[in-house]
Amino acid sequence: MNSGYHALAGVQAILRERQLDALIVSQPENRRYLSGYTAPDHGIQESSGFLLIPQDGEPWLLTDSRFTLQAEAEAIGYHLHVYRRGLLEALEHLLPQLDVQSIGFEADYFLFSTHARLLGLAEKLGFRLEAISNLVEDLRVVKTTDELELIRQSTQLNERVFTHVYSQISLGQTERELARLIENTMLDFGADRPSFDTIAAFGENAAKPHAVPSERRLKAGETVLVDMGLVLNGYCSDMSRTFVLGEPDAIFLERLRLVRAAQQAAISTIRAGVTGAAVDQVARDVLREGGYGEAFGHGLGHGVGLAVHEAPRLSPHAHTPLAAGMVVTVEPGLYLADWGGIRLENMVIVTEEGSELLNQDTTFLDL
Amino acid sequence: MNSGYHALAGVQAILRERQLDALIVSQPENRRYLSGYTAPDHGIQESSGFLLIPQDGEPWLLTDSRFTLQAEAEAIGYHLHVYRRGLLEALEHLLPQLDVQSIGFEADYFLFSTHARLLGLAEKLGFRLEAISNLVEDLRVVKTTDELELIRQSTQLNERVFTHVYSQISLGQTERELARLIENTMLDFGADRPSFDTIAAFGENAAKPHAVPSERRLKAGETVLVDMGLVLNGYCSDMSRTFVLGEPDAIFLERLRLVRAAQQAAISTIRAGVTGAAVDQVARDVLREGGYGEAFGHGLGHGVGLAVHEAPRLSPHAHTPLAAGMVVTVEPGLYLADWGGIRLENMVIVTEEGSELLNQDTTFLDL
Repeated sequence: MNSGYHALAGVQAILRERQLDALIVSQPENRRYLSGYTAPDHGIQESSGFLLIPQDGEPWLLTDSRFTLQAEAEAIGYHLHVYRRGLLEALEHLLPQLDVQSIGFEADYFLFSTHARLLGLAEKLGFRLEAISNLVEDLRVVKTTDELELIRQSTQLNERVFTHVYSQISLGQTERELARLIENTMLDFGADRPSFDTIAAFGENAAKPHAVPSERRLKAGETVLVDMGLVLNGYCSDMSRTFVLGEPDAIFLERLRLVRAAQQAAISTIRAGVTGAAVDQVARDVLREGGYGEAFGHGLGHGVGLAVHEAPRLSPHAHTPLAAGMVVTVEPGLYLADWGGIRLENMVIVTEEGSELLNQDTTFLDL
Repeated sequence: MNSGYHALAGVQAILRERQLDALIVSQPENRRYLSGYTAPDHGIQESSGFLLIPQDGEPWLLTDSRFTLQAEAEAIGYHLHVYRRGLLEALEHLLPQLDVQSIGFEADYFLFSTHARLLGLAEKLGFRLEAISNLVEDLRVVKTTDELELIRQSTQLNERVFTHVYSQISLGQTERELARLIENTMLDFGADRPSFDTIAAFGENAAKPHAVPSERRLKAGETVLVDMGLVLNGYCSDMSRTFVLGEPDAIFLERLRLVRAAQQAAISTIRAGVTGAAVDQVARDVLREGGYGEAFGHGLGHGVGLAVHEAPRLSPHAHTPLAAGMVVTVEPGLYLADWGGIRLENMVIVTEEGSELLNQDTTFLDL
């Protein structure tokens, strides 16, 4: 199941509009989105392949012999070109057949050195190069019905993993042990892989929004902050939970209630037509009025799809209106250096009238 | 422990020679090598920071607030600049203070779009930009005594993991289960992480040099090909083993002996002054004379250090002489589509007189 067929037509329409004869797609999620070919890159210097999308006619997938079988099985409707020495060799072979005068490349996922070599080929074969930004990314922002279903399944599996792990958290466990338990459970339950490095932070460590799990052991009454996501059939999930094993103290409960109130106020604001900045402001206002305006330093949320961080953003700088079919996280938090932190993160689908909550609506506490 | 102090002087000497006032280091292993700062990148679009190395004077580490504490603790001798919006903002702030007229950047790990923005800044502030390739990589090729010790430790831990896992391999296990057992054991034994996605391939699946572990279950008498490596204190290891659970048949033993002979012949050729191509040729000749010339399609080996694949290569195209202190894999193999494959991979240190074998010298079989 992939969304590539109508998306390919969308790309070709934009190429016609911009008078470009072809587009080279190098960004791994864009490549998968358009072709269904699932191989990831191991870093930009170890590409698993490129798409060459002509304005008219059938598209090409260019890759090396390690991926031939996978490419044939997955990239339905694509011609396959197997190269030995990489993109430049493949283009030198293919472009003369395709009568291409102008070609776009993805400037935000294209190495300077690759471009320099491509420029040499452009001079030799007589075509024009154009740097392109966010062409495919913009198409990915609004999800299809099929994609929404895959994101629902990814989120539900992520919840199942958390529920399973929650019953196994115990005093004395280290942050690293908890993070590994979560990631192993994801794989046991059938996830492709974690969608990012799992965060498990105890006590004061939860004050760092991007805490790296350490050898710190869990003590009674301490905050446990978990931020976890998985990939299932290519689609990502992302959620954060903050809780206490045993009896939470009054200050924790007060702060958790505040973050929860900020999250609920923000979610109730979401609908098609509202900007990400407006949604962010609602959560920020609740936290400021509660006395924690300075303690919330990051943006409220981000889009989720084939990438775990993608457009749109919910942040003070996000002035484009949301649209139905977008998927975003809503993750207010507060972080206090000597105390710790709280973050609650759920995912929602933006709809015309409001939003659809993808996560279970619980904090595991009687608030 | 890092090799950054003398390496920094080496970079500055090259900058003087090339008449460059400064170098921007973006490649993660180069960044770690020079500064001791260990944060990895999660893809080129999520950089954990940049070094700015002036030709004279003290170097800078530029990063964002997520990494402030880590950068202060690790990058000894570096000034720290914390940016909010990335490299360009930081350079706009710092370069005017440093009186820089010319600046190099790492063309093989620098996005086209970042370069385009940097060009704008160069015009505004009046400096010249120069694309640089392999400046720091070339320094990394010959390891220091400290680095060799770290690589020894990484290789020894990798061997310990394999020995532990070897006793737990059983019929009915899937390739994915075996690969996960290996990676979990690495983490249990204290590795930072796997140095690449572990390969576990059974039977015909071993015919693919880059096989991805599947749900195929191990049957008696089948080939098991394992290719595994870990990172310990930043330094990588990499080894391949091919064996059979139970009684190997005569054809397997014959082919394994041949690959083993190719490996031993190649290793006995290695010493400072010999080219990677010459070493590759020795292994290739043994396989060809044994009737499997066509079955060995990849290069014989690669350098290992902070990166699991780095210079030098052992391949038909590697015409630079090896030098003492280089570390390379020696990994001949044979791959037959309907049968399966064999690969034996050990790591060695190149010395003036020959080489030092880093792995245990065993195939688990009486050959």
